Amino acid sequence: EERDVENSQASSLAEFRDRKSVTWVDVQGLGDVEILKEVGDTFGVHPLALEDVVNIPQRPKAEEYDDSVFVITCMITAPELPEVEVEQISIFVGSNFVVSFQERYGDVLEQVRNRIRQGKGPIRKSGADYLAYALMDAVIDAYYPVLEDLGEYLEELETVVIEHPTPDALQAIYRVRRELLVLRRSIFPQRELLSALIRDENLIFRDSTTPYLRDCYDHCAQVIDVLETYREICGGLMDVYLSGLSNKMNEVMKVLTIIATIFIPLSFLAGIYGMNFEHMPELHYKWSYPLFWVVIFSVAAGMLFFFKKLGWLDREEHPVNISKTSND
Amino acid sequence: EERDVENSQASSLAEFRDRKSVTWVDVQGLGDVEILKEVGDTFGVHPLALEDVVNIPQRPKAEEYDDSVFVITCMITAPELPEVEVEQISIFVGSNFVVSFQERYGDVLEQVRNRIRQGKGPIRKSGADYLAYALMDAVIDAYYPVLEDLGEYLEELETVVIEHPTPDALQAIYRVRRELLVLRRSIFPQRELLSALIRDENLIFRDSTTPYLRDCYDHCAQVIDVLETYREICGGLMDVYLSGLSNKMNEVMKVLTIIATIFIPLSFLAGIYGMNFEHMPELHYKWSYPLFWVVIFSVAAGMLFFFKKLGWLDREEHPVNISKTSND
Amino acid sequence: EERDVENSQASSLAEFRDRKSVTWVDVQGLGDVEILKEVGDTFGVHPLALEDVVNIPQRPKAEEYDDSVFVITCMITAPELPEVEVEQISIFVGSNFVVSFQERYGDVLEQVRNRIRQGKGPIRKSGADYLAYALMDAVIDAYYPVLEDLGEYLEELETVVIEHPTPDALQAIYRVRRELLVLRRSIFPQRELLSALIRDENLIFRDSTTPYLRDCYDHCAQVIDVLETYREICGGLMDVYLSGLSNKMNEVMKVLTIIATIFIPLSFLAGIYGMNFEHMPELHYKWSYPLFWVVIFSVAAGMLFFFKKLGWLDREEHPVNISKTSND
Amino acid sequence: EERDVENSQASSLAEFRDRKSVTWVDVQGLGDVEILKEVGDTFGVHPLALEDVVNIPQRPKAEEYDDSVFVITCMITAPELPEVEVEQISIFVGSNFVVSFQERYGDVLEQVRNRIRQGKGPIRKSGADYLAYALMDAVIDAYYPVLEDLGEYLEELETVVIEHPTPDALQAIYRVRRELLVLRRSIFPQRELLSALIRDENLIFRDSTTPYLRDCYDHCAQVIDVLETYREICGGLMDVYLSGLSNKMNEVMKVLTIIATIFIPLSFLAGIYGMNFEHMPELHYKWSYPLFWVVIFSVAAGMLFFFKKLGWLDREEHPVNISKTSND
Amino acid sequence: EERDVENSQASSLAEFRDRKSVTWVDVQGLGDVEILKEVGDTFGVHPLALEDVVNIPQRPKAEEYDDSVFVITCMITAPELPEVEVEQISIFVGSNFVVSFQERYGDVLEQVRNRIRQGKGPIRKSGADYLAYALMDAVIDAYYPVLEDLGEYLEELETVVIEHPTPDALQAIYRVRRELLVLRRSIFPQRELLSALIRDENLIFRDSTTPYLRDCYDHCAQVIDVLETYREICGGLMDVYLSGLSNKMNEVMKVLTIIATIFIPLSFLAGIYGMNFEHMPELHYKWSYPLFWVVIFSVAAGMLFFFKKLGWLDREEHPVNISKTSND
Repeated sequence: EERDVENSQASSLAEFRDRKSVTWVDVQGLGDVEILKEVGDTFGVHPLALEDVVNIPQRPKAEEYDDSVFVITCMITAPELPEVEVEQISIFVGSNFVVSFQERYGDVLEQVRNRIRQGKGPIRKSGADYLAYALMDAVIDAYYPVLEDLGEYLEELETVVIEHPTPDALQAIYRVRRELLVLRRSIFPQRELLSALIRDENLIFRDSTTPYLRDCYDHCAQVIDVLETYREICGGLMDVYLSGLSNKMNEVMKVLTIIATIFIPLSFLAGIYGMNFEHMPELHYKWSYPLFWVVIFSVAAGMLFFFKKLGWLDREEHPVNISKTSND
Repeated sequence: EERDVENSQASSLAEFRDRKSVTWVDVQGLGDVEILKEVGDTFGVHPLALEDVVNIPQRPKAEEYDDSVFVITCMITAPELPEVEVEQISIFVGSNFVVSFQERYGDVLEQVRNRIRQGKGPIRKSGADYLAYALMDAVIDAYYPVLEDLGEYLEELETVVIEHPTPDALQAIYRVRRELLVLRRSIFPQRELLSALIRDENLIFRDSTTPYLRDCYDHCAQVIDVLETYREICGGLMDVYLSGLSNKMNEVMKVLTIIATIFIPLSFLAGIYGMNFEHMPELHYKWSYPLFWVVIFSVAAGMLFFFKKLGWLDREEHPVNISKTSND
Repeated sequence: EERDVENSQASSLAEFRDRKSVTWVDVQGLGDVEILKEVGDTFGVHPLALEDVVNIPQRPKAEEYDDSVFVITCMITAPELPEVEVEQISIFVGSNFVVSFQERYGDVLEQVRNRIRQGKGPIRKSGADYLAYALMDAVIDAYYPVLEDLGEYLEELETVVIEHPTPDALQAIYRVRRELLVLRRSIFPQRELLSALIRDENLIFRDSTTPYLRDCYDHCAQVIDVLETYREICGGLMDVYLSGLSNKMNEVMKVLTIIATIFIPLSFLAGIYGMNFEHMPELHYKWSYPLFWVVIFSVAAGMLFFFKKLGWLDREEHPVNISKTSND
Repeated sequence: EERDVENSQASSLAEFRDRKSVTWVDVQGLGDVEILKEVGDTFGVHPLALEDVVNIPQRPKAEEYDDSVFVITCMITAPELPEVEVEQISIFVGSNFVVSFQERYGDVLEQVRNRIRQGKGPIRKSGADYLAYALMDAVIDAYYPVLEDLGEYLEELETVVIEHPTPDALQAIYRVRRELLVLRRSIFPQRELLSALIRDENLIFRDSTTPYLRDCYDHCAQVIDVLETYREICGGLMDVYLSGLSNKMNEVMKVLTIIATIFIPLSFLAGIYGMNFEHMPELHYKWSYPLFWVVIFSVAAGMLFFFKKLGWLDREEHPVNISKTSND
Repeated sequence: EERDVENSQASSLAEFRDRKSVTWVDVQGLGDVEILKEVGDTFGVHPLALEDVVNIPQRPKAEEYDDSVFVITCMITAPELPEVEVEQISIFVGSNFVVSFQERYGDVLEQVRNRIRQGKGPIRKSGADYLAYALMDAVIDAYYPVLEDLGEYLEELETVVIEHPTPDALQAIYRVRRELLVLRRSIFPQRELLSALIRDENLIFRDSTTPYLRDCYDHCAQVIDVLETYREICGGLMDVYLSGLSNKMNEVMKVLTIIATIFIPLSFLAGIYGMNFEHMPELHYKWSYPLFWVVIFSVAAGMLFFFKKLGWLDREEHPVNISKTSND
């Protein structure tokens, strides 16, 4: 027997509690404390757990009570990249029911609902523990598209940072780093809670569900691996950015130095022959002026040759071209 | 039977020791060693523990004695953000009493007193272990408003650092980092002590109190998570600050280079025609002077075009605008 | 009895399942889901495992099922240094068969095939667990040539960075770091899975295979050691690069400062005697002009002497020549 | 019966070995190998342990022998801040004696001697294990004044670094960091050894001494916490120093740029009218010269206005003044 | 019965295998695979172990076989400081023999040979396990002189870096860091292997040898402590070097700025009176020229005063002189 009831009265839930089939009550929005309390009372949610449902944000965790398990997990969405939104989902699992509390309307669990409605996979044949697993799995699977988007964002950022190290790029790196911190803070405790569920024996999560939890744990570990990689990439981008700044400064200083170094001595020479001493024999020779130009050009050419030799006039003249050695 | 006695004589405490109901003795201020000793003797506080009460600051810890548990914890207040004040609270828990010692008058435990006076929650019905938990929980809950204030402070600092990287901002970052170190040093051992209380069996903290201690432990872990995040944010802000400095330097150098690079060659040209050689035919042509201006403007325009091409004349021309790719 | 069948029909595999001898089915390319399913069904691959085969990339791991072990591992190739390609190989080990799934055609297992065909070593005499070990070992051995190439690449990079710190070199460092992250992400979980296989008792991997797995584990640990060393070397190269930039800047600034500091005062002197005041007695003395040149050269020589004393005119005058003290 | 014998002959020690009361032999200075050997033989010190006494410095550790425990610990003094001196104290504890070996004359154990002489506290009533604890405790307590001095030193350094980032300050930071490394290297193994003494059962250290060892362990952990905090503070000071340098550079560059940017164009203008072209009509107008000055001042004022707008003329105009939000 | 046979035939070794006394076979040089195989066969070296002997470098490790233990360790020499050479020594320990394989001729084991020949210490009276310990101990003791030399090298480097931060010094730091990485990679696994030998029960290493192994382990831990300290010192030197560069740049920029800031305005003034306007009344006054010099000197003096006030003319005026506070 299957039923899909929406916006039901909290009072009508009592009848589901004692059925043999599995009941999933999904509460979206935590505004009405009365309803929460009624739902909690109906399914025997521990007062401490109910407090954790309301006082958000809590740290993801799993807590075992006499005949139920209480899990807090974190749902991630990223409507505006790179900003990430975190929503707490509290899941209360009994032997024949699952009660989930969400902060807001809208979630990443649609796929679970579809599988229930269409009866796909083992979800309809399995117990409340499998359903709880399915919810946790959906929550963790929702990290993947966000990570992918962040990965692409980082790749585009990489191009920008390498080619145009502007302050905008710096801020983008900084923002990504901050969001990665948010993601880490939400995913690390979930790994702990999954490992606790797998390790500790309890009455709710049966042995048959353990491989699924292990699978979920592996995904969690993979998400963490990717996050750590992204963090290191951000650190690397920061280094690239900073040395990009130094490089730009070097370029600017080189231009200034080349121009100044060429023209300051020449201006001095011109200044010499602009002096008004009475006895300056050079001023009166016929070839002085053309000779002066010759000197000027010689000095300028000498300077340019000197800078050429210092390698200041070429850009990036030493590409790293390393031939792969054969290895077999 | 409930009593709320203030400023009682230490000598009058003996009668409370042997009652069945739970007694909480709260000693504020450690100045009078005699009183401390009398209170300690009355409730059988171990001499080593009493030494730790007086020799502040001690590292937060939990120690088990024959029929009592001694807990040192750290109370945080932040009257002047971002500076943080730490005060040691030593809690000595017996089977039917709790003795707490505070460094100074004033604390974060008012909420616990209210719950006792109003008889709200399980605090009046539970034993000394629950009361001790309530005190430790109040101490850890007092971290939250401080963390929130620090979070807001960091956010404002972020705006300041990104827009005006002044030395003041640097010092603010440095000060926040130092205070975060103080907070870490006080909260890390509290996690250890809670985990020890949960893990180790002892006669004082009963099984019924364990879920509460676990809850307290979770809050502690969350505080640590937030602190670590703040630390990383501070590190990120430092990077942003330093590259802000480099950017400012780049801007300054660009202005200097543009001005110098345009005018130094022009000045050289003017210097040329300020020379007093007798034989300088250009000086005598009618169109020389206007032509000179034409050359001047051409050179200046050429330079500006060159700088334009180098991208030195625009600011932040490469905003990072990365379209979110759809993922479903 | 030995057989080496290529491109066989999936349907014809059933007969191998029940033989006593060990069968290795190697599926290259994951395009045809039907075949994968048929192979999976034939050898009793758990649906969750089969999902992991197809949904690449998975994190390397070992999972134990009732009468089989499922291992995911990562094959590394580096056709275009420093870029690294990762390919997932999923290995399903039963008591008398090994089924491996590869993402693409082409692999690093040729050496294993040769040993089977030539009957070299214990591979033909041992069970499916030894074969599985041989595959994992070949996968990990394939890291060595890549690491060696990366090591040589880093050495060449070192020369480049020390001698010519160009932006190209920076990007090369950055790219190597990123590839090292990829390698780490693939090898760390393999160490975990090997340690789990060694530690946990299971029906498939027998005690006689344990020394081989330990050997494989040691290689894995060595790969990780080398990777960590490379990472630190990259960090060191980054520092060298950045200080190379600073050094270049210093050189540029020194040239500018020397030229400007010498000629700006001289130009000022020339400017003085280019003034048109009526009453400037110096202008009319006979020795003024030669004397002027004397002054000019004295000032210039004084400046140069000053710079010499500051050590600005020499390069690298303090080589670190530290004599080894004898120690016996 | 109590005796306090100084400079006794090594040979006369044998009589103390077999007494019931506790004997403490304190050997200061390791020059005379014969005496060391004689003392060692008298009290049955293991040859390996005696080697460790002489071959200094050893890593702090605790080793258990059949009927004795051998402890190596590290005494810290800081006569010349921030330099720290480390001296090894080897303590050999039997059931009724303690033999301690010090590198040099002079130590931090005077307080223990006083307590023994005055019979204060439990030291005279307890066994050799308590005495050994008292020595280890005195050694660890001697870290506190050094840490306090270092803390004050760091605070003064902080003021210096923030106000005058000179190379001297950098070297001071560097030296403090090096001394902190020395302190860490000496205190970390002491924590290990204490934790081993507490954890491992042995015949010498009885259960009644365990709370004291735990207390000592807590002090050790606190010393480590403080050291780690100091290290992070040093890292922070380094950052402050480096950005202080950048700030100073920015200030220098701004002055140069402002002066150069204002006067270089003006000099160009003056150069224009210093040219000797025959046909320069402006030279002959009556108002040219005053007008020239007007132009000069307009250009200078424009430049200054421009710099004002860039914020280059003010210092630290954005103090971080963040009002504390109320939180209750 | 004692024999010391050099360059014996591999075939003649069989007779030693079955004796009661301990036999040490030391193979130097791995060129002749036949000999290695013969030696291996004679003493029952496992094929996997023999492979590890030949395929160098292996990671140091200890492996237990049925009646033997196989240890790979790393010998360090530093003929050309700071470069470090690593040589693998594989030690195969049976109940009455030790077979060691070295990569090359020449080693650090001479001291062990001397002790055997001279019969000093317990080495002749103890079993094969003690001999194996003696070899491992000699290998680890050989780290000490290298560390001492590196320590002196670092100290000299420190002086160089603080006084003359040249690129040479940077490369020296970089090279030391790389060699420290090599040392770490070789010593860390040796600690693991020693801890495994101490922890795991095995038939070869008897309880009486355990204190020696623990001693060896302690030395290993000390080597690691020193290496970590050196690494941090290198990091600190890097910081000092980088800020040394910044300081030098600051000095260079200050000189430029002071000279330019003083002379550029003065040159402008000179340029003013070099103009050829007809109507410049100042040119004709008698006191103009002397007055001009007065103005020049006033401006220059004002500038210098301004720079003095900014503190640009003094060097290191704020030495960190912090008086030690008394603490007793």
